[in-house]
Amino acid sequence: MNLNSTTDDEELTTPTRFLGIDPGLNRTGYALLEHSLKGPVLCEGGIIRSTQDGNLASRVHEIGSGIREVIEEFRPDIMVIEQVFTTPKFPKSSIIMAHARGAILYAAHDGGVPVVHYTPTQIKRLITGSGRASKEQMQHAIKTELGLKTILEPNDVADAFAAALCHYHTIRVTCF
Amino acid sequence: MNLNSTTDDEELTTPTRFLGIDPGLNRTGYALLEHSLKGPVLCEGGIIRSTQDGNLASRVHEIGSGIREVIEEFRPDIMVIEQVFTTPKFPKSSIIMAHARGAILYAAHDGGVPVVHYTPTQIKRLITGSGRASKEQMQHAIKTELGLKTILEPNDVADAFAAALCHYHTIRVTCF
Repeated sequence: MNLNSTTDDEELTTPTRFLGIDPGLNRTGYALLEHSLKGPVLCEGGIIRSTQDGNLASRVHEIGSGIREVIEEFRPDIMVIEQVFTTPKFPKSSIIMAHARGAILYAAHDGGVPVVHYTPTQIKRLITGSGRASKEQMQHAIKTELGLKTILEPNDVADAFAAALCHYHTIRVTCF
Repeated sequence: MNLNSTTDDEELTTPTRFLGIDPGLNRTGYALLEHSLKGPVLCEGGIIRSTQDGNLASRVHEIGSGIREVIEEFRPDIMVIEQVFTTPKFPKSSIIMAHARGAILYAAHDGGVPVVHYTPTQIKRLITGSGRASKEQMQHAIKTELGLKTILEPNDVADAFAAALCHYHTIRVTCF
């Protein structure tokens, strides 16, 4: 199975509303990127938090339900989500993040939104030109792209926007 | 956060229908254990499969939707699910399994079913007395417990039943 695959190539030919996701169980960032004649625009962004002292099922449900609401409100054409990274040092963190991702993907498919996945390295490379870019370099690139005076905060929203922007740039050669 | 925690202790005092789950993205086994005066009874068991060539979101959705249907049909009092194991050798397998688990937990919480988690070692220890029991030893213990003439198949259902049985034995001192 290819984690980078999408549900249907046809669905990818004309997206104009990209929902970027920075997944996590504590907090999941989202950002809605819309295509305009002037380029990508950040229409909406926010964070879905889970209750810290809740159990795993209820927290996973809070994240999934939050994403469901965002999808219902903004009707994105596609979801772009950061892939879970596996690190031998922190295997539990990856497992926990994957639980949240499972609920997010469930909500996306339930809402009829196709999903594409990018690794953090792919996102960094596409946004800054370097797969090893620092947080500051990423923030600077996003600030420039959007013509902002200050960096985009909170960081979860900036990371979600970076994911959406990555896919935007990946497909714009053929679509826009 | 304690993965072994449950949503509400009060909800655990009188369960009679235990839905055991052996989670997986390819196939998720389930088994419904019901308490009777003669002991635990296997009422129902089956497998939810995902389409092998589907993408991750659609497969996660197939597993979550299947669990949702099982919950709606059998209205269990509690879900007992095997915990994801982390192995440095196969980190991707654990990550994939955790995605399926995320969708399963989402469906459980959505259906108002509290969840308890047990590690494979805990389940083996409670069923056979040894945390290192082989598949054959587990199968033999389940066969004996249920008074079957042959072993319980398929194995996914047997594993799901073992999870349910583990919780059944854990709480029966106080409940039954």
